[in-house]
Amino acid sequence: MKAIAIISGGMDSAVAAKMAQNLGYELIALHFNYLQRTETKELECFRKLCDSFNIEKKYEIDLPFFAQIGASALTDKSIDVPTNGIEAGIPITYVPFRNGIFFSIAAAVAEKEGADTLILGAVEEDSSGYPDCTQDFQNKMQAAIQSGTKAGNLKILTPVIELTKAQIVKKAVEIGVDLSLTWSCYKNEEQACGVCDSCRLRLKGFENAGQKDALPYA
Amino acid sequence: MKAIAIISGGMDSAVAAKMAQNLGYELIALHFNYLQRTETKELECFRKLCDSFNIEKKYEIDLPFFAQIGASALTDKSIDVPTNGIEAGIPITYVPFRNGIFFSIAAAVAEKEGADTLILGAVEEDSSGYPDCTQDFQNKMQAAIQSGTKAGNLKILTPVIELTKAQIVKKAVEIGVDLSLTWSCYKNEEQACGVCDSCRLRLKGFENAGQKDALPYA
Repeated sequence: MKAIAIISGGMDSAVAAKMAQNLGYELIALHFNYLQRTETKELECFRKLCDSFNIEKKYEIDLPFFAQIGASALTDKSIDVPTNGIEAGIPITYVPFRNGIFFSIAAAVAEKEGADTLILGAVEEDSSGYPDCTQDFQNKMQAAIQSGTKAGNLKILTPVIELTKAQIVKKAVEIGVDLSLTWSCYKNEEQACGVCDSCRLRLKGFENAGQKDALPYA
Repeated sequence: MKAIAIISGGMDSAVAAKMAQNLGYELIALHFNYLQRTETKELECFRKLCDSFNIEKKYEIDLPFFAQIGASALTDKSIDVPTNGIEAGIPITYVPFRNGIFFSIAAAVAEKEGADTLILGAVEEDSSGYPDCTQDFQNKMQAAIQSGTKAGNLKILTPVIELTKAQIVKKAVEIGVDLSLTWSCYKNEEQACGVCDSCRLRLKGFENAGQKDALPYA
């Protein structure tokens, strides 16, 4: 069992990758740099997480075209990251079809490496409400990938998709994922802002899990 | 009706785009440079085709990561392009999940531009036998894109998928697509080799359509 684990540097994909490793998958780590605001910090976290998981084979793939498309507060610096609290609907931090693009490239890497599984840390309920983080999307994307690839048997595994952020924090403690090696803030790379949607979800998760977040906050 | 037309510089996508334009779609053209052997020539053809179709808005997107993945004679220069004739099975010119990657990025561009349709020049039967050129794949990819995007109503249109190469040549003549502005050869950029699978399919198409190909051949 060989899997391509998409690891962003955040909590969810770190826990998802470790859970898959514990299931017996040999992991090849895949990280995307897409000129998002916190690209440097996320790449640093990706590398530290890979070291801590003893993952030997890594792909670091640059996707500069995300800035050409923009249309998201994460990839277009003229759009501010919202900090007033999580609102209903799909927020402006949504990056158009990001997980579709990530899965497609991961499928190509899997064909190259002879892997049978793609691991993603998508979270459906306790999240920002992105359409490409739903179970329905993962099912349909898997069907598309199976139809459009050579071997036709690639599976998508999303181990944390039904978990809340608090459950993800508890799971990290349980299986030994060091969350101080992860980064969630959408805005900053030195001190987390504490007020963007991603910081709010992270902090609420730690609070509800009865844990303390070791990251520096502004 | 606004559509993102993926135009490679080859015959099939040129005819597909023109057919869609004739159906009344306003076209935004999308081209990918993926360090394939004939990247420069294909980009030149893309630009000339856009001019001839009076397409004003264009995206030219660089995808250098295809060389990191390789595993295809088109993107890994250590693998020779086969020239001994078309064989059964999926050939070594297959680029892992290329159309899945192209569609995913096109979907993101469509979200940015408020387009409702993606146009691709995939050909199923009279082709090299790539898994990501089938009608089944297009159907499943459309379902995945609709599930994973904001508006959820993007359609995929593949106007030439059931045509033979001869029918594509005839259609080009009928609707005024200048095929001398297109390039098919997998290997060369000055004179087409005439013996790679893509040249063979093109030449057979012209022959069966009773037309003469104006391109220079080695």
